[in-house]
Amino acid sequence: MSDIPGLLPGLEVVRQDFPILERRLAGDVPLVYLDSANTSQKPQVVIDAMVDHLERHNANVARAMHQLGAESSEAFEAARDTVAAFLNAPSRDEVIFTRNASEALNLVANTIAWAPTGDGELGIGPADNVVITEMEHHSNIVPWQLATERKGADLRWFGLTDDGHLDLSRVDDLIDEHTKVVSLTWVSNMLGTVNPVAEIARKAHAVGAVVVVDASQAAPQMPVDVQAVDADFVAFTGHKTVGPTGIGVLWGRAELLDRLPVFLGGGEMIETVTMERSTYAKAPHKFEAGTPPIVEAVGLGAALRYLGDLGMEAVHTHEKAVTGYLLDGLASVGGVRVLGPTDPAERGGAVSFELEGVHPHDVAQLLDSRGVAVRAGHHCAKPAHKRYGVQSSTRASSYLYTSPEEIDALVDALGYTKSYFKV
Amino acid sequence: MSDIPGLLPGLEVVRQDFPILERRLAGDVPLVYLDSANTSQKPQVVIDAMVDHLERHNANVARAMHQLGAESSEAFEAARDTVAAFLNAPSRDEVIFTRNASEALNLVANTIAWAPTGDGELGIGPADNVVITEMEHHSNIVPWQLATERKGADLRWFGLTDDGHLDLSRVDDLIDEHTKVVSLTWVSNMLGTVNPVAEIARKAHAVGAVVVVDASQAAPQMPVDVQAVDADFVAFTGHKTVGPTGIGVLWGRAELLDRLPVFLGGGEMIETVTMERSTYAKAPHKFEAGTPPIVEAVGLGAALRYLGDLGMEAVHTHEKAVTGYLLDGLASVGGVRVLGPTDPAERGGAVSFELEGVHPHDVAQLLDSRGVAVRAGHHCAKPAHKRYGVQSSTRASSYLYTSPEEIDALVDALGYTKSYFKV
Repeated sequence: MSDIPGLLPGLEVVRQDFPILERRLAGDVPLVYLDSANTSQKPQVVIDAMVDHLERHNANVARAMHQLGAESSEAFEAARDTVAAFLNAPSRDEVIFTRNASEALNLVANTIAWAPTGDGELGIGPADNVVITEMEHHSNIVPWQLATERKGADLRWFGLTDDGHLDLSRVDDLIDEHTKVVSLTWVSNMLGTVNPVAEIARKAHAVGAVVVVDASQAAPQMPVDVQAVDADFVAFTGHKTVGPTGIGVLWGRAELLDRLPVFLGGGEMIETVTMERSTYAKAPHKFEAGTPPIVEAVGLGAALRYLGDLGMEAVHTHEKAVTGYLLDGLASVGGVRVLGPTDPAERGGAVSFELEGVHPHDVAQLLDSRGVAVRAGHHCAKPAHKRYGVQSSTRASSYLYTSPEEIDALVDALGYTKSYFKV
Repeated sequence: MSDIPGLLPGLEVVRQDFPILERRLAGDVPLVYLDSANTSQKPQVVIDAMVDHLERHNANVARAMHQLGAESSEAFEAARDTVAAFLNAPSRDEVIFTRNASEALNLVANTIAWAPTGDGELGIGPADNVVITEMEHHSNIVPWQLATERKGADLRWFGLTDDGHLDLSRVDDLIDEHTKVVSLTWVSNMLGTVNPVAEIARKAHAVGAVVVVDASQAAPQMPVDVQAVDADFVAFTGHKTVGPTGIGVLWGRAELLDRLPVFLGGGEMIETVTMERSTYAKAPHKFEAGTPPIVEAVGLGAALRYLGDLGMEAVHTHEKAVTGYLLDGLASVGGVRVLGPTDPAERGGAVSFELEGVHPHDVAQLLDSRGVAVRAGHHCAKPAHKRYGVQSSTRASSYLYTSPEEIDALVDALGYTKSYFKV
């Protein structure tokens, strides 16, 4: 394996933890999986934890007074502890399990829309505004469009600079005394940009706004400390952090979770129910209606322990090393235009690009014929594509198991694509 | 194995499909799992399907243009076909994947609350009412309390008769020309009662109301034909139908799904997004924001195919046979009062009861010491308990893998409980 400074120690052994990396695809080519910003692959320990739960400990949680129920509840709540530690959350009760990051963001947008309005209240009304950014994933745009439209509030956003950063020049106009929420991504899923979240949080808090951070791309690849970043809500998803689908996380400040109204109604989130009215449990249960994603929490716990064992600093260093190698490789192809920052120190591991003269879908298809899996399209970030004058792009995204040889395979396949299309 | 008419053919072989049934618990007693109304156990084929997906086919769906993405999307959408066939749905596009049944019911309640109001519109306003029943699970009470409270509408409900049925004597007062929604459970999770859903749907449709059916307990144990029952929305959950947690289903009539506003915002549910406004995809994607529960859909598909291979009529016959045997067994104990119908032909497989002189939690604990897993508490149905003058009950619930010997073990353990507490 090529030696590049910063690679994860024992990368070849780490890769053996991921059974899917042994797949050979049609044409008997090895899988080169460069679509990890879309979803990550799963190590055997995650799969084994889920199987063990299903085969030996499966029962509903919280409500079952028997041995299996106790085992299942313990495993489920242990996963909450693991998430709290992963985020450096002050309290495990601030960790809410959702279906995915989208639901986590919708939970915040909806409960803020339902909250009482006025000075010092969390709710948004016609006099208030919500600030997002032009580089958000649709999951951090649409919920705020819906919430502000329903409540008559104003939706505004940070524009982007030509080199793929947030345009902070108008920050003091954007975030004003009527700003109730500032919601932004930590790391762009399209541009790769790492945003100055703590700095923006300071501005937002200065006017009393609540800060929501979409950490869907940050949580997999860098240490996330919710206290250091000074956010009020942080969302991420299990399936991008080597965990299963079907589970996401919303971390929220206890004081705010306490003040927000409930989201979905049902079992587990209540204190008492009569036909006339109900009262509600405290967080996190207040926001977890119905049977939660139990085996998914078990899988997520195993996933975050796996990441913790590797060390998120080491994962981050690996990502930067591989991304730097990827950017160099793309530059060597000729005719490749990278959308977003080109300095690996300023960005995450998702690299969107155009190959001059070839439609991104054709690029992806040619790469796929050589076993190289990338994403082509708008990556759920249409406004950011529009900002840079394109409809779509090809995106290669690495992760902790990505090897330099896989980047070489991508670069080779791009050369093949160029010769195929004679560009 | 005891021979009781109606048992599932080859029950001993069927039981071998469920690895957890080999568990021995503390005290080296075999597991007797009688908590299936809470969550069902999983056959090996479901676990294997999930593992195969995670180890060989894992990728995001819809958005990935590569071989793994195609395999994953195909598996995910095949599960939607399986659900549509399981429900006899007119169209696969009427099948929406949610986190659980609670989310499915909240989806309907929220989108109806957000819909336009007035004659012929789906929305609820101050002049309108919503009708539920006193035997609902909290997940079909709280969402309607929240929705009617937010919109100023009236919430009303069917009361219950002394023998555990819906009191239909006031049906024409309850369901009137101002009724916009009638939402009720098909089979009670506490009383076991099977409700005359088609009859109530007829009354509701006569006044133009929408009919929502909570099939959480029905779908696991009897054939569910959404066309025959003439509902507009039907909800159920994966984990009670031998599938995984983290996935539920909302079936809805295409015409209504088309008219309802969107629920959660994010990826997959959009048609296009600009910073100013978004337009939305058609159902089912319209209601599926973000990365869906992919491996869970694969598991659910395998689960419903497993049930289909056994035959839902055969499963239903088995449930009635075991429930009859259970009711006879409970009657033989002495001092047991069953809450709900005592004729197995009129009820499902969840049997809640009181043991005179012993608190339900103590009953459950004593049973657990003998390996018998039952639920004790309010079973997320506090109003129904209150109706019958009790705070809580013990509930034994069978499923397709339940054997007469397990019922014998319960009856023996109840005898032991009586002698232990000297009642």
